[in-house]
Amino acid sequence: MRAPPTLRRCVVICYYLIFRFGTCMIKVGIIGGTGYTGVELLRLLSVHPQVELGVITSRADAGRKVADLFPSLRGFVDLVFSEPDARQLAGCDVVFSATPNGVAMTHARALVDAGVRLIDIAADFRLRDPGLWEKWYGMPHACPDLLAEAVYGLPEVNRERIRAARVIANPGCYPTAVQLGLLPLLERGLVDPDHLIADAKSGVSGAGRKAEVHTLFAEASDNFKAYAVGGHRHWPEIRQELERASGTPVGLTFVPHLTPMVRGIHATLYGRLKGANIDLQTVFEERYRNEPFVDVLGPGSHPDTRSVRASNFCRIAVHRPGDGDTVVVLSVIDNLVKGAAGQAVQNMNIAFGIDETTGLSAPAVLP
Amino acid sequence: MRAPPTLRRCVVICYYLIFRFGTCMIKVGIIGGTGYTGVELLRLLSVHPQVELGVITSRADAGRKVADLFPSLRGFVDLVFSEPDARQLAGCDVVFSATPNGVAMTHARALVDAGVRLIDIAADFRLRDPGLWEKWYGMPHACPDLLAEAVYGLPEVNRERIRAARVIANPGCYPTAVQLGLLPLLERGLVDPDHLIADAKSGVSGAGRKAEVHTLFAEASDNFKAYAVGGHRHWPEIRQELERASGTPVGLTFVPHLTPMVRGIHATLYGRLKGANIDLQTVFEERYRNEPFVDVLGPGSHPDTRSVRASNFCRIAVHRPGDGDTVVVLSVIDNLVKGAAGQAVQNMNIAFGIDETTGLSAPAVLP
Amino acid sequence: MRAPPTLRRCVVICYYLIFRFGTCMIKVGIIGGTGYTGVELLRLLSVHPQVELGVITSRADAGRKVADLFPSLRGFVDLVFSEPDARQLAGCDVVFSATPNGVAMTHARALVDAGVRLIDIAADFRLRDPGLWEKWYGMPHACPDLLAEAVYGLPEVNRERIRAARVIANPGCYPTAVQLGLLPLLERGLVDPDHLIADAKSGVSGAGRKAEVHTLFAEASDNFKAYAVGGHRHWPEIRQELERASGTPVGLTFVPHLTPMVRGIHATLYGRLKGANIDLQTVFEERYRNEPFVDVLGPGSHPDTRSVRASNFCRIAVHRPGDGDTVVVLSVIDNLVKGAAGQAVQNMNIAFGIDETTGLSAPAVLP
Amino acid sequence: MRAPPTLRRCVVICYYLIFRFGTCMIKVGIIGGTGYTGVELLRLLSVHPQVELGVITSRADAGRKVADLFPSLRGFVDLVFSEPDARQLAGCDVVFSATPNGVAMTHARALVDAGVRLIDIAADFRLRDPGLWEKWYGMPHACPDLLAEAVYGLPEVNRERIRAARVIANPGCYPTAVQLGLLPLLERGLVDPDHLIADAKSGVSGAGRKAEVHTLFAEASDNFKAYAVGGHRHWPEIRQELERASGTPVGLTFVPHLTPMVRGIHATLYGRLKGANIDLQTVFEERYRNEPFVDVLGPGSHPDTRSVRASNFCRIAVHRPGDGDTVVVLSVIDNLVKGAAGQAVQNMNIAFGIDETTGLSAPAVLP
Repeated sequence: MRAPPTLRRCVVICYYLIFRFGTCMIKVGIIGGTGYTGVELLRLLSVHPQVELGVITSRADAGRKVADLFPSLRGFVDLVFSEPDARQLAGCDVVFSATPNGVAMTHARALVDAGVRLIDIAADFRLRDPGLWEKWYGMPHACPDLLAEAVYGLPEVNRERIRAARVIANPGCYPTAVQLGLLPLLERGLVDPDHLIADAKSGVSGAGRKAEVHTLFAEASDNFKAYAVGGHRHWPEIRQELERASGTPVGLTFVPHLTPMVRGIHATLYGRLKGANIDLQTVFEERYRNEPFVDVLGPGSHPDTRSVRASNFCRIAVHRPGDGDTVVVLSVIDNLVKGAAGQAVQNMNIAFGIDETTGLSAPAVLP
Repeated sequence: MRAPPTLRRCVVICYYLIFRFGTCMIKVGIIGGTGYTGVELLRLLSVHPQVELGVITSRADAGRKVADLFPSLRGFVDLVFSEPDARQLAGCDVVFSATPNGVAMTHARALVDAGVRLIDIAADFRLRDPGLWEKWYGMPHACPDLLAEAVYGLPEVNRERIRAARVIANPGCYPTAVQLGLLPLLERGLVDPDHLIADAKSGVSGAGRKAEVHTLFAEASDNFKAYAVGGHRHWPEIRQELERASGTPVGLTFVPHLTPMVRGIHATLYGRLKGANIDLQTVFEERYRNEPFVDVLGPGSHPDTRSVRASNFCRIAVHRPGDGDTVVVLSVIDNLVKGAAGQAVQNMNIAFGIDETTGLSAPAVLP
Repeated sequence: MRAPPTLRRCVVICYYLIFRFGTCMIKVGIIGGTGYTGVELLRLLSVHPQVELGVITSRADAGRKVADLFPSLRGFVDLVFSEPDARQLAGCDVVFSATPNGVAMTHARALVDAGVRLIDIAADFRLRDPGLWEKWYGMPHACPDLLAEAVYGLPEVNRERIRAARVIANPGCYPTAVQLGLLPLLERGLVDPDHLIADAKSGVSGAGRKAEVHTLFAEASDNFKAYAVGGHRHWPEIRQELERASGTPVGLTFVPHLTPMVRGIHATLYGRLKGANIDLQTVFEERYRNEPFVDVLGPGSHPDTRSVRASNFCRIAVHRPGDGDTVVVLSVIDNLVKGAAGQAVQNMNIAFGIDETTGLSAPAVLP
Repeated sequence: MRAPPTLRRCVVICYYLIFRFGTCMIKVGIIGGTGYTGVELLRLLSVHPQVELGVITSRADAGRKVADLFPSLRGFVDLVFSEPDARQLAGCDVVFSATPNGVAMTHARALVDAGVRLIDIAADFRLRDPGLWEKWYGMPHACPDLLAEAVYGLPEVNRERIRAARVIANPGCYPTAVQLGLLPLLERGLVDPDHLIADAKSGVSGAGRKAEVHTLFAEASDNFKAYAVGGHRHWPEIRQELERASGTPVGLTFVPHLTPMVRGIHATLYGRLKGANIDLQTVFEERYRNEPFVDVLGPGSHPDTRSVRASNFCRIAVHRPGDGDTVVVLSVIDNLVKGAAGQAVQNMNIAFGIDETTGLSAPAVLP
């Protein structure tokens, strides 16, 4: 340890200043904090150096200490779950909504009017067409005007618009993994947009922390299955964004699967190349050269989901088997981080003008 | 219990006769019995009512009791692993080879000459072109003549030829799941054969019982990854058989994945339909109406791998999302049963003229 | 295949006789067949050569095909769940109750009066003291007289009494594993009965097929915990039976744990030896020499739960670390088989005078 | 975000100063970085604000980029594995040895002579008696003099001695969990020291990243077993330290088990209480009141291993079932963090006089 004593003293003073003047903080509220997205937000935000947790609501668990429900947070979160209270929420700088679909849109108007930014981790603001929303989510949209102004919070696409957004629609987990894998191809028109295939595999935490038979350990362990082949709510979301990226209609077959792991999404993406002379590796590397959380692996790689476990990274590899006309993209994320809470924090960082990686710069937990 | 006493006595006598005259049995030898295919063969054959286990070889474990290596077989298998011995093997009616690739072909000639039928569960007799074999398996084929006469042991295709076969090439696990899912479409020319996609997911037992880092529990658990996207040995095997079924060249993209479960393969298959007015459900049901081990689920179903765990069944569902031009077939097997040992026993049953389901008619183990 | 033709013909005739006169069958009813014990009963009984499945009830799923709920049974079980109907049940030879606790005792009197034998896989008839039952299960016992005559269905202890029993109380899963491990010591007074410790670990299927948060995959996977250290319902059951075996009061500390696997119980049992010169290995081997389903492993062994997976075996090893005064017994069962449905079938076999191992003689599924 | 602009500027300057003068850093070397302890050290140290990674050695992987072997470290660790080089290591402030047993002791003398502190995460310096070491590890100790001065690195016991230690013996994973659970009882003489029982369950990463059959996924998944009941190397280590704590000989039965999870140890500890009027909850809470990484849960709690996953915490609950004379302590850690790399970093922090929690203050990853 070779630091000169004067420097060490200086550093100590710096730390003191930083921690003493804690007001230089973003005051955060969380609506609906008892699900997996909620506890993951708390894991990230409780050690985020520029966040002060103000309030966390839960109708079902109001009055209960957060750390009693989630012992992993003992010593990190002293809050108690409270009933949603408009005044309390209005005192925050930003509110994350980690509720089931259809709740955030009922809070949105009041929050925006109070000058509070809203980051909805559910689906309320993801589909730009209110009719499409109603079709897939089974209820009319509560605030189409805010839907119109909401920004789809995929930083790799909308970074600039996120800075000023009042309402940020945090992308779904599957849509994040699929879009990051297909964007470089669609933005440059390299594949036939009519016949894209996204074969996606998710860990079971993606189904949420609800008591249901089909996600019991004894049902989902040592087992593998596809589901919702006939139609999944993430399909219109993915298609909307891919069409935006390509500027053309997109034909997408999307098959999600449940795989016996807690966290992680692996999207295996197939497209038919329009031309033969494309250096796909370079296309991907250039597209994401300046992205802090998208990592393009070298040629011939196979990213595994654990290489991003508990981290905000997306790792991608691109293949062209037998030098044929089919491109295969492998894209992995942690569904609870880059697919939910981590991306929400990334969006918050962008929206508040602080370093985008703040609070998100830990390596994945491996093994 | 309403059986009349005389009948009960008769039944007792019947059982006595069956068990007393044990010579009415198929005498079985196993070469290389220490892997997962070996222990699975033993699980099935040790209670097969018409099999007598004669010899099981293993160079590495010669002299060791089988039940010491696999305590699950205590009380069922009294054999001791022995060095491979040509004379002993020649005394069997049938020999299963459950060794690594390249071993069975060195035994084949002697066995066939001794009138012993050979069922190779490895790859030695799967590719009809010896040049292709050498390319993918890295060694010249030891007996091209026997390769020429060997029958590919997929009963749903080659049942009649299996009856008389001297050498049966038991299909690979992925090829079984993929072929059973695609055959009904290709045999009737319903899909574009140039752009088939097989996205397949396997449990870790598919990698065998070898000490390797990447299949350690701490590597493969809570993790998901693709592998060998650039080229997997099962690709030429699948393609050969699909081309045989369709009578045309086939373009197939095959991406295998490792999923954290012990047993099971889930193949998700994609093809582009040539016409719109096809009742796919009926096509599949008719194709497999008389197959004892292929079960076509009803419309809208999603088979899970555990529904075939430890059983010889293949369960299949066929989908056409959004009534579009893409057909999605879901096909599941237990890689160690229908994908290896069980199919081998099925082939033996056919070859020896006994009921094809003998010893294979237990339901899957669920949960 | 060396059977002489005449013998083969004879065998064929035998089989014909057996299968033609299907009336020589035990007609079985199942109350509450939608849980894991229910589906496991169906797995075993559907291929039991002397069982005819007559009726299976479920209030919640009445009208639904069994094989729709459990696709693993497609082709094996054609029954439809029905509302419990006294008359239908009265037409059975034996009824298994696989319901939650407190249901079987409401059916018992009617069944017994109709001459139907009742095997209760829940806890209603396990505790001989109705007061103790009420204390631990929170409701008064509905038929204390039948409780008094019920036989505790651990064949290794009560085989003779089971033959004639009208009501059989199938033991709990933990109690089976713990008792089989401690009986040889307690029956011969070899350990201090005041300070026994049973540290037991169960797979998650032991918690049943109910939608609950704590047994979700994302909660129970990659996790390990103790539960109910303050008191578990199996504690009084174990203690009652150990006291019966030893003839003295027993002090037992019982700590159950949840371990991330589907099936299996591993009980690690600790006792203080009274004397130094005991050949424990021989004690155990002699105790279970004639038991078809209890397997005492050789000295220095460590049974793993998968060595009994999906089978009715209990495997046991006995250790004396450092030749000290502490004996350590390792006892493993499959909680759904020897710990529930399999033992129930074993009890049925005994009660109906057929070979005790009928329908239960398949090796464990490994891997 | 309510920080006044001047303060923000000040904070920025502080950060600048801290990061600019990077020399105020501990220069770290790692010997043997390719195992799970190695990659876990790298995960923690790569974001430790006062650590500079200098060198990481591996004979087998010399020349390979660390991030190629462990893609989770891409963007965090730029180092290349190198052959062990005495001069390079001598330039470090501290060297962690994450090698197999028997290697660190061959480097120790040279490092100490060069003024480099050594933290050995293997077992070389854990047993104070060289004879005992030789007996359990099968080789003579290479530097008994350094063994004599080495400090056993359990901060909760030896914090003061660690500050000045030249050689720190990082405790084993089981010993950490067991000691932290038993120390409060033994230090105050509350239990009979002759009959302690430690029933411990470990995730599979505890077996290391070596290719071995018994830790393959297909062997260890959906399975549970005890091992080394006759004697495990951690037994003498635990006993040595418990005897030091209690000042008397200790009789300990230690049974380790393998449980199908990646990370985590759950120790279930049993002791016989000497007296009845002890408030055990208070004893534990007082013992660990000032410990940053030991968390005593409230009465009636059951800590689960995931509540400490990927964190440096030990969570403990104490029970007295039925108010009897048996105390049951539940103690959980992450075997790779508090049981290995995390505790090693904690020791480094102490030894270099920085805040003990630096780089270790992230909540557990749940789910």
